[in-house]
Amino acid sequence: MKLSKILDDMYKENIDSMLVLKPENITYLSGFRSSSYSILILKDEPVLFIPKMDLDEAMKDSKIQVEELKSFDKIKESLSGNVGIENSLNVETFKRIQNDFEIINSDIIERSRSIKSENEVKNIQKAVNIAEASIKDVELVGKECEVAAEIEYNMRMNGSSKSAFDTIVASGPRSSLPHSKISRKTLEDPIMIDWGAIYNNYCSDMTRTFIKTEKQEELLDIVIQAQKRAIDVIKPGIKASYVDKVVREVFEEFGYEKSFIHSTGHGIGLEAHESPSLSKKEKTKLQKGMVITLEPGIYLKGKFGVRIEDIVLIKNKAKVLNKTQRKLRLL
Amino acid sequence: MKLSKILDDMYKENIDSMLVLKPENITYLSGFRSSSYSILILKDEPVLFIPKMDLDEAMKDSKIQVEELKSFDKIKESLSGNVGIENSLNVETFKRIQNDFEIINSDIIERSRSIKSENEVKNIQKAVNIAEASIKDVELVGKECEVAAEIEYNMRMNGSSKSAFDTIVASGPRSSLPHSKISRKTLEDPIMIDWGAIYNNYCSDMTRTFIKTEKQEELLDIVIQAQKRAIDVIKPGIKASYVDKVVREVFEEFGYEKSFIHSTGHGIGLEAHESPSLSKKEKTKLQKGMVITLEPGIYLKGKFGVRIEDIVLIKNKAKVLNKTQRKLRLL
Repeated sequence: MKLSKILDDMYKENIDSMLVLKPENITYLSGFRSSSYSILILKDEPVLFIPKMDLDEAMKDSKIQVEELKSFDKIKESLSGNVGIENSLNVETFKRIQNDFEIINSDIIERSRSIKSENEVKNIQKAVNIAEASIKDVELVGKECEVAAEIEYNMRMNGSSKSAFDTIVASGPRSSLPHSKISRKTLEDPIMIDWGAIYNNYCSDMTRTFIKTEKQEELLDIVIQAQKRAIDVIKPGIKASYVDKVVREVFEEFGYEKSFIHSTGHGIGLEAHESPSLSKKEKTKLQKGMVITLEPGIYLKGKFGVRIEDIVLIKNKAKVLNKTQRKLRLL
Repeated sequence: MKLSKILDDMYKENIDSMLVLKPENITYLSGFRSSSYSILILKDEPVLFIPKMDLDEAMKDSKIQVEELKSFDKIKESLSGNVGIENSLNVETFKRIQNDFEIINSDIIERSRSIKSENEVKNIQKAVNIAEASIKDVELVGKECEVAAEIEYNMRMNGSSKSAFDTIVASGPRSSLPHSKISRKTLEDPIMIDWGAIYNNYCSDMTRTFIKTEKQEELLDIVIQAQKRAIDVIKPGIKASYVDKVVREVFEEFGYEKSFIHSTGHGIGLEAHESPSLSKKEKTKLQKGMVITLEPGIYLKGKFGVRIEDIVLIKNKAKVLNKTQRKLRLL
């Protein structure tokens, strides 16, 4: 059904066949995640080309007919007419087809992926549950990297196939860096943790900041208020950029608009970050079935930072998928 | 020095400035690994463009001058003349420059990366040591995914920033799939484990198969012999494809040539898989300073598989960086 809708969209955009290389797009349409370079040709009778060593698993798992990937010339033979390509296609491959076909860039698959089916929502919910369960008994002592190791171990044991992205554990002044790399530093306060699981190829992504001082609590309260404002305004039909705008307005009210140095959130699904972006420039309108993160933060350079991040499903209004409380204190 | 050599190579290939987006290439030249979309412009006075939220860390770590990434138009202004691009550049970005500049595809950086400095070898050796230390006390009981979780936890605790790739733990018939995905299956024999650490951004990648039956031992002995043959022939100046050839000859001798369904190995460094490939089609000759893996395997469909993988540094001959013995038995 997903596939026939995408084929319809392709033909409407005058695309006769589409060359799909992005692993998440291939997983979305075939149900199979290859461990190596694979190619999907979308057309009335789609074919998934898989290298020999993954052939057995692909034959078992793919909803689309599988053939062995032997040479790129074979791939070209199964393309015809106007050829659709992904924006992420690499130039090397592009050059191998550009003289033989009319090429049309298209984000049809990414757009379809942004609206989740019930089953996709269930997988994301499960990934959220795993992430939340995996921090409960973690003792916040020792080194930053040790806390990250323990969370990731727990996620694995709780059914996550791996971490959805590099777990962030940033404490003390390092919490003022939104995407701080893992370190062997001994924990200080506050402790910002940003982590996510993967269940059936679907990601979760959440952040909590464990606070200690009054000042930290003051900023955390503002961040919680900003996120609540976003949750309150979300409904189908509003612009994604509007959600970013109302969050910035809350920060402005308290004089922290310059301390929020990234966008408000992003779609999540087969990728931890996917369409739409909740940022100033995003043109997309929110629709029922989108699943997005809301991650407002305040970063005081050289001092500390606070951020929270939760996932919401867009129904008639926002439905928050997380259950973990937002204000967490260090003992 | 690395940088001036690459600039020399660029000018020799008539490239006046080069647009670099691949994160590993940026890390290679600047020393900084960004958490998000960043752009390096290589020219006499190179500039690294970094989004606001990673700016502080970049200013601290980058050996190349850092500026805030505000818009792609700014990037275009700092390009000039014939513009070099990476083969991996995405079409979306390519289209934004193709009408303004003469574009030349180049793998100058990848070629430079394939020859490791002493310091790079030290980092890889450390990543090898971490991986080897992290399996020592792992009990091979329970589920496949639990063994993977424990190895990854140990690598973290031993100083790895994360796993170099998805750890493979494939047992029983699943070991006949070279890149089997992680499962919750209870362990059977044999157990194939393929894992790697990352130290200072540099990867390791190794495989061991824990055997039980005589048949498993017979095949493991052949695989060890095939790898030994590769180690014996390696020296600077021979073709990478020749190493693949001699490995296949050993398998042919025992009638298993059709059961070796992937290439013999690959370069390793900032990426777990990088240039050169040790495969039939590879044109590159081995050179001093290259670091490659050797991973012969035999896969009996539906029954079981055995593989070993070790890393060698190419000096006057092959120097094996691993110390873990190759024949390991299940109790």
